[in-house]
Amino acid sequence: MVKTIRAHTNIALIKYWGKADSHLRLPLMSSLSMTLDQFYTDTQISASDEDCFVLNGIRQKGASAQRVFSFLKVLQQRFGVTGHLLVESTNNVPTAAGLASSSSAFAALAGAFCAHYNIQLTPIELSRIARLGSGSACRSIYGGFSVWQKGTDDKSSYAYALDENPQIDLQLLAVELNTKQKRISSTAGMKMAQSSPFFQPWLLRNQQELEQMISAVKAQDFTAIGNLAELNATEMHAVNLTARPSFTYFEPATIKAIKMVSELRQNGIECYFTIDAGPNIKILSQLKNVKDITNKFVTEFENVKIINASFGPGISYLN
Amino acid sequence: MVKTIRAHTNIALIKYWGKADSHLRLPLMSSLSMTLDQFYTDTQISASDEDCFVLNGIRQKGASAQRVFSFLKVLQQRFGVTGHLLVESTNNVPTAAGLASSSSAFAALAGAFCAHYNIQLTPIELSRIARLGSGSACRSIYGGFSVWQKGTDDKSSYAYALDENPQIDLQLLAVELNTKQKRISSTAGMKMAQSSPFFQPWLLRNQQELEQMISAVKAQDFTAIGNLAELNATEMHAVNLTARPSFTYFEPATIKAIKMVSELRQNGIECYFTIDAGPNIKILSQLKNVKDITNKFVTEFENVKIINASFGPGISYLN
Repeated sequence: MVKTIRAHTNIALIKYWGKADSHLRLPLMSSLSMTLDQFYTDTQISASDEDCFVLNGIRQKGASAQRVFSFLKVLQQRFGVTGHLLVESTNNVPTAAGLASSSSAFAALAGAFCAHYNIQLTPIELSRIARLGSGSACRSIYGGFSVWQKGTDDKSSYAYALDENPQIDLQLLAVELNTKQKRISSTAGMKMAQSSPFFQPWLLRNQQELEQMISAVKAQDFTAIGNLAELNATEMHAVNLTARPSFTYFEPATIKAIKMVSELRQNGIECYFTIDAGPNIKILSQLKNVKDITNKFVTEFENVKIINASFGPGISYLN
Repeated sequence: MVKTIRAHTNIALIKYWGKADSHLRLPLMSSLSMTLDQFYTDTQISASDEDCFVLNGIRQKGASAQRVFSFLKVLQQRFGVTGHLLVESTNNVPTAAGLASSSSAFAALAGAFCAHYNIQLTPIELSRIARLGSGSACRSIYGGFSVWQKGTDDKSSYAYALDENPQIDLQLLAVELNTKQKRISSTAGMKMAQSSPFFQPWLLRNQQELEQMISAVKAQDFTAIGNLAELNATEMHAVNLTARPSFTYFEPATIKAIKMVSELRQNGIECYFTIDAGPNIKILSQLKNVKDITNKFVTEFENVKIINASFGPGISYLN
């Protein structure tokens, strides 16, 4: 029987924003993320006469199919297996939510690959191969909080579980602002960012911020987690702004949204923002404030969509 | 006969954004500016029965009058002179244009003070005392390009003329976007900015960027001037964004405007932005492109106002 693998997306609270090796997807910095319950990808792989990638019931051609199969080919070579494959995926990640579906997609793919060929791996080994598909996918092997230690080579660069079952009240509001700008890809953005005079200073700070975040997670300290996540996110976007040429993922609505987070905080509603390679913001908050924050954004933005997520589980078999 | 002094505003291409001594207004970094022909303050000082500050025909009370007279009191003490003063100023600086009128205002005040008491100063001495009123005022003593060397004490912190009569085609478009947000004062912003992890790295770069800008000015290299000015401005705003708490002078329209500058450049219309402690942008361009740039902004923004400025002269007597 074909096994279906489910992997959840994760959101980085300490960001990954720069490759040391683009082929092996080794990062320039370590990162830390929260796996989300609301967004996931289900994938199953079976033998086939020809390579075929079906996403949400539609056969994919072009770049997305190519990326899937070049990843699977790398894995086939690595494990000495062969054969054409049918990949069937269902993505429960609204692309517009500004959440990278590639993290759940490539984690699920790595899991489905192992299930198909009956390859037994430890979570760390699975994390390492998921990384080859998409860097952030290596963190989606685990639930709760996970840390991707940058390492120095293929063997040492993988994610580990920091806390698979966190007891802290931490809500993530994925705020989809109504923007329609074309987007600079993460890969292109990461490359451009390195021309910023603040890129090296940021790299030098990474270990310190990671350690502070690990302590904040262990202490279940919402305020410290929020402050560090917001600082780290602004650093990433400051690096983009100061790149040569300058670029930004911010749209006009992004500025309005981050000012609204400040304003809410000033009014005693504790919340923090983080932003990835897109115009949307994600708000870190606590259960008691979710309603107020949501109401504020719904009132102030046209056609805003907000999804309230919390901690999701690690990769799993559905059957 | 009472002499009227005219001083022009200046715009920093290498920014001043941090005080080493707030009383003496010693800066943490050197800066470089362009004096602008379109914006100026005319001021005359005469003896009076009581201190009185009239701006654009209206007697001022409160904070703005207080700032003027506490500055004049410092100068009176320094030069051993006394007496109540009538200060009459006309500001030809649309406040909404996002240009600090304090640079022309305090330069003109310093000049009018010396005229009233018949104190003969060299331009450098005048620059030094203007600095006590508003840091950027020390650069408005000169026309063209000037450099404020940060120095280490009152004596060594002053501006000098880099090129009083530049031959380069450099236009500054002051773009007044239609925003109505309350504003964080420069003084408050400068203080908050120092909490950014990028503030020290920025300071360390200042001397290098200043030297590159001086070379670009000497070489009359528009492209180099524009690139350096834009980089330096993004650094200032990146430092604000990464302060704790994070803040920004950007408004939604600011993001739209800076993306428009990138777009124009990609379409072969060479221009660069700089942004000070407010939401408006200033565009560095050349005569041949002023019309296209203006048209683009007028088309894309509602109620935008654009003033085309170029090099202004140094401080002068009008009579």
